[in-house]
Amino acid sequence: MNARRNRQWRVSRYPSAEEPIDEQQFEFVTTTAPEPEQGQFLVRTICLAPGPAQRGYLDKQHADFFANVPVGDVMRGRGIGQIVESRHPEYQVGDLFVGSLGWQDYSLQHPRGAEFVFSTKKILSPVYPLSIELGVLGQAGATAYFGLHEAGQIKPGDNVLVSAAAGGVGSTACQIARLSGANKVVGITGSEDKCEWLRDTLHVDATINYKTDNIGECLNELFPDGIDLFFDNVGGEILNTALEHLAMHARIALCGYIATDYATDPGPGPINYRYLVQKRSRMQGFIVFDYWKRFAEAEMQLRNWYSTGELIDTNDISEGLEAMPSALNSLFTGDNRGVKICRVSPDPAVDR
Amino acid sequence: MNARRNRQWRVSRYPSAEEPIDEQQFEFVTTTAPEPEQGQFLVRTICLAPGPAQRGYLDKQHADFFANVPVGDVMRGRGIGQIVESRHPEYQVGDLFVGSLGWQDYSLQHPRGAEFVFSTKKILSPVYPLSIELGVLGQAGATAYFGLHEAGQIKPGDNVLVSAAAGGVGSTACQIARLSGANKVVGITGSEDKCEWLRDTLHVDATINYKTDNIGECLNELFPDGIDLFFDNVGGEILNTALEHLAMHARIALCGYIATDYATDPGPGPINYRYLVQKRSRMQGFIVFDYWKRFAEAEMQLRNWYSTGELIDTNDISEGLEAMPSALNSLFTGDNRGVKICRVSPDPAVDR
Repeated sequence: MNARRNRQWRVSRYPSAEEPIDEQQFEFVTTTAPEPEQGQFLVRTICLAPGPAQRGYLDKQHADFFANVPVGDVMRGRGIGQIVESRHPEYQVGDLFVGSLGWQDYSLQHPRGAEFVFSTKKILSPVYPLSIELGVLGQAGATAYFGLHEAGQIKPGDNVLVSAAAGGVGSTACQIARLSGANKVVGITGSEDKCEWLRDTLHVDATINYKTDNIGECLNELFPDGIDLFFDNVGGEILNTALEHLAMHARIALCGYIATDYATDPGPGPINYRYLVQKRSRMQGFIVFDYWKRFAEAEMQLRNWYSTGELIDTNDISEGLEAMPSALNSLFTGDNRGVKICRVSPDPAVDR
Repeated sequence: MNARRNRQWRVSRYPSAEEPIDEQQFEFVTTTAPEPEQGQFLVRTICLAPGPAQRGYLDKQHADFFANVPVGDVMRGRGIGQIVESRHPEYQVGDLFVGSLGWQDYSLQHPRGAEFVFSTKKILSPVYPLSIELGVLGQAGATAYFGLHEAGQIKPGDNVLVSAAAGGVGSTACQIARLSGANKVVGITGSEDKCEWLRDTLHVDATINYKTDNIGECLNELFPDGIDLFFDNVGGEILNTALEHLAMHARIALCGYIATDYATDPGPGPINYRYLVQKRSRMQGFIVFDYWKRFAEAEMQLRNWYSTGELIDTNDISEGLEAMPSALNSLFTGDNRGVKICRVSPDPAVDR
């Protein structure tokens, strides 16, 4: 068998706090794909999905939360691929597989233990293009679904606010909130283009441009009875302002805090936490991995909505493994719209 | 019938943000007790319980949360009294009554509507001295009970932290946490005396003196596996530090925020809110009045614990209606220990 050329992004150093992610923190090397041992299989990467958490893999401050990727190692990252060699009886050549493939053309994989049983899995009834399996039907979908339904305890009639609403998880949360019976869904984002996209394509009821609008005034107008559920990806000043506009018994599903996460000076904390008492409200942090054992439940619902056209694919595609550093960085600059995906090699059903 | 002399503390002006509560904000007047109309009864005040919320009645900033007491009106406040005249068929002269009596010798009362049905009620099987009905068996008891069991979802084996642990609600929460099966109860307070009292009298496992100890280091040592439940009366810097020491799936029952509540400059907010995500934890605000309909449930448990000697009376008594302004102020200076009570007139069973 001819050796397979395996390009890899290896970590060469960690970025400093406010430095953008770019190619200087990685080495792009070409090596040879390894041979699977008994129980393993080799996966060709089709698509990768950069996620904000990946910056945490390169940040010692976050080592207690995200395992850091050691300098010299291949960058860690989730993707979908196809098995090209197998020494595992239940995984056949041609099977599709979602898991932690890393920023590379080929990876050795094996089925994981029970804890993460759904985080690496065979895709049995794929939806094409396969990138959707990494988007609204994948981790972004599960995060939005469990964030709204578990952490956020969404109820029909809720008035819902979503921050970073044009991002991968945010745009999915806007859709799922509406599909779950919200009375009103308002998205906060950072450009007029993204506001329009949220309203026209994703049918969000109203939008707030945090760069040009006064968020407090907008919330006053848009939520005269207060916010019942805030799906927050941002934290910082937006969280602080939203706290002041909660309805009684409101819930904040705290998904991320990108505003303060990688800042040298994270600024003041949310002093309006006192409204949690006044409004008998809660702020609940969550992480999608805690729900992997229940992923099938979310997946069934998400696939149903997708099949009827109610849940719209929001993938924002970059081309080529080479684009991974800039694709990851785009999540922090507000340049992406929807779920960021990098296409690495042909999709078996779509690309001919 | 001779007219009854009725002394009253009337509000003469609101204190500024960092001004202590004292007699200068009130007028002490002597008037005559009114006659009850049909459906009303006249109550002689036996004890009053000042509470931190009462400062909010005199603060326009808090008007959306606590109804302000208008200047010129009798200061609002909760107490226990005895009916001395009645024109209500179900309330007899001699009956004991808990409710919003105000800072005065006599008040006209009537049974309230369903919403606050347990906040004004006849005491059928009183415990003597009656001040206990305002302490561990009263609002302090109910606040600690529902805060731990509802907002805090206490579970046997929890490692529990309580702030303002020597205060009325805090000292009751320390006791109820232990009685509810906590593995460890740690109290934060502001003097060595109060630390000793918590350990020796209330059987708290360990204490932190926030004025002399490094709270973060203490939490590190005392909670090697993290805090499962934090019953927080204080907010501010203590809340921020505790957030960093949460166990997985921890719960913060947010009862008050006395550290930042009446400050001109409340300081930075709890930037460590990010640990709510990392530890999949929650911060739940609550107010005891929301649970009044279930007060009987708490009361039965509290009376059982009290009758077996497991729940200790922590009342800290001031003498005379005259003492009310300084009694209220003592809640903010850390001078009180346990539930602050002001004795206004003789207790029918105890004072002879």
